[in-house]
Amino acid sequence: MLETTIAAIRPLDEPAVAAARDLQARLTKPAGSLGALEGLSVRLAGLAGTCPPPLPEPAAVAIFAGDHGVHAQGVTPWPQEVTVQMIGNFLAGGAVVNAFARQAGATVTVVDVGVATVPPVDAAEVSMGPRLVAANVRRGTRDMTVTAALTRDEARAAVETGVRVAGELVDAGAGILLTGDMGIGNTTPSAALIAAFTGVDPAAVTGRGTGVDDETYQRKIDVVRAALRRHRPDPADPLGVLAAVGGLEHAALVGLILGGAARRVPVLLDGVIAASAALAAAAFAPDAVGAMVAGHRSAEPGASVALRHLGLDPLIDLGLRLGEGTGALLALPVVTGAVRVLHEVATFDAAGVSEK
Amino acid sequence: MLETTIAAIRPLDEPAVAAARDLQARLTKPAGSLGALEGLSVRLAGLAGTCPPPLPEPAAVAIFAGDHGVHAQGVTPWPQEVTVQMIGNFLAGGAVVNAFARQAGATVTVVDVGVATVPPVDAAEVSMGPRLVAANVRRGTRDMTVTAALTRDEARAAVETGVRVAGELVDAGAGILLTGDMGIGNTTPSAALIAAFTGVDPAAVTGRGTGVDDETYQRKIDVVRAALRRHRPDPADPLGVLAAVGGLEHAALVGLILGGAARRVPVLLDGVIAASAALAAAAFAPDAVGAMVAGHRSAEPGASVALRHLGLDPLIDLGLRLGEGTGALLALPVVTGAVRVLHEVATFDAAGVSEK
Repeated sequence: MLETTIAAIRPLDEPAVAAARDLQARLTKPAGSLGALEGLSVRLAGLAGTCPPPLPEPAAVAIFAGDHGVHAQGVTPWPQEVTVQMIGNFLAGGAVVNAFARQAGATVTVVDVGVATVPPVDAAEVSMGPRLVAANVRRGTRDMTVTAALTRDEARAAVETGVRVAGELVDAGAGILLTGDMGIGNTTPSAALIAAFTGVDPAAVTGRGTGVDDETYQRKIDVVRAALRRHRPDPADPLGVLAAVGGLEHAALVGLILGGAARRVPVLLDGVIAASAALAAAAFAPDAVGAMVAGHRSAEPGASVALRHLGLDPLIDLGLRLGEGTGALLALPVVTGAVRVLHEVATFDAAGVSEK
Repeated sequence: MLETTIAAIRPLDEPAVAAARDLQARLTKPAGSLGALEGLSVRLAGLAGTCPPPLPEPAAVAIFAGDHGVHAQGVTPWPQEVTVQMIGNFLAGGAVVNAFARQAGATVTVVDVGVATVPPVDAAEVSMGPRLVAANVRRGTRDMTVTAALTRDEARAAVETGVRVAGELVDAGAGILLTGDMGIGNTTPSAALIAAFTGVDPAAVTGRGTGVDDETYQRKIDVVRAALRRHRPDPADPLGVLAAVGGLEHAALVGLILGGAARRVPVLLDGVIAASAALAAAAFAPDAVGAMVAGHRSAEPGASVALRHLGLDPLIDLGLRLGEGTGALLALPVVTGAVRVLHEVATFDAAGVSEK
């Protein structure tokens, strides 16, 4: 299934790209005056293979949740139980991602792909709001400083879960997929993945996550360095990298991105967890980058390193470092606006406006 | 009326600021993880004088339109008639501002405060969509390189038009005012205003507007320099500055900002035209800055100089240089999201989520 998905990912459609460029030049605005929105609209036309591309509606956020064996190394001050507690908060609609999703009119799907304890589900809550998908591959990764975080089969199963979720959301009508994540400790495997795929030193891609003190921060860098030294992951073998130093939510996000790209639906990336998964997705299928839109520049330094490696410029830069999909949701109206211009704005000819 | 409005502008309400800071710390997210949104939500609580502050809904864009005598100096390749033609485009709903306003659920009000020719109004169109307010103070400014652009009385009349529009929009229920503008040539007086209020050299605050070649760009700088040399405007006399080197839409935007601040409603600034007007508004009433939210960082260099002078960080930075209110509309969901967090996100206690 992973191989079929990768094979389905194709380059942008050049005639649609050309048609969108031509249309942008005829709309009632100075050429180039919409800045980054113009190039984005052109790329999304190429992705859809038609101009104008469909409006990216409705939007679907998929929050993949997992726990991390490396939590034992003291890389975060937050207890691991917060992962499952936050799933309860998502399902009850009380998290920031819920507030932003309501505002944006986006659905929220929470996927337990690797949480350490079984999330308690209140059926009444779930029927009214966010949906929980039970797809646990294993109850948390192993400690990557001791052994590989996952077997290759586990990593593949998590990736394929993401592909399946992407397919189900697109089948249900989603016009854009937004990446979300929850997993206490998950900025540590993100840093390891980014260092592995980009070759950048761990100290330059490791951040303070949800807020760690100097001592924990130094330990976090040491942990990433130790894991990379132990496994020496090969960036040309993305499944091997994910198995060695990844997380189950990271692997599932790789699948979501590949699944979206195969269906030619844009995937709006949230923060550093998504950016690290995007590197793996690009290693599986370089053309998948055509479907990726960087929602925001996370405060985590690794996110900027990863996005630069992918050649992606984020739409929003507000110092967010919350995760959950919040940064992607804030960027969604920019993506929709970029496409809407191609649908709704009059041309100079039609509006009777003089050109310069 | 201007004096009454200025007298009504007060500092932020400190108890509401403190309450919002305290609430932010109890919500289910790591402290500080919403970056710039947290401080924004706190400030808007202080502006409203209550925590949480009301959601900034509905939003109202006011597009002030004017023409410029300095157009005769060849500062832009666009013919002056485009101002009135674009008003027709706004009223027909075909401009980018209309597309973004529909997406954001914002109303659009077009105000002829200084257009050179009478806008032709199709009553059927106006009844269905954007509204045109006829409030022409004079049919375009005078050429500021030859004489003052406006008399003090004309400048005051335009400012008071903006105050009146702000009052009418707030009376009609608007929870936030967005600045919009239309005026071929209006980045030239914007640069002059910014140089006058900040003391920064014209070459550093003059940009290429809607896109001018090197020769026109140099002429534009020379024109700004010549106007400032002729009038030597005193930044402590904002009405004098507006009269000497301003535009009618600039003056009206000053009024919109002051009117919003007096009513304690946030004013979301668009690009360089708004930023230049914001400097004048701050010169009239320093506490008005508390009501200003910088929507985006315009590609025009003067906008960044002005925002820095005001101590405002823009929410979005995508290289836009279109005007009309488009950058403010793109930023609106960020403002709404920042406030929504205070309304809808669960506290650690209520959600049963452990703290670090």
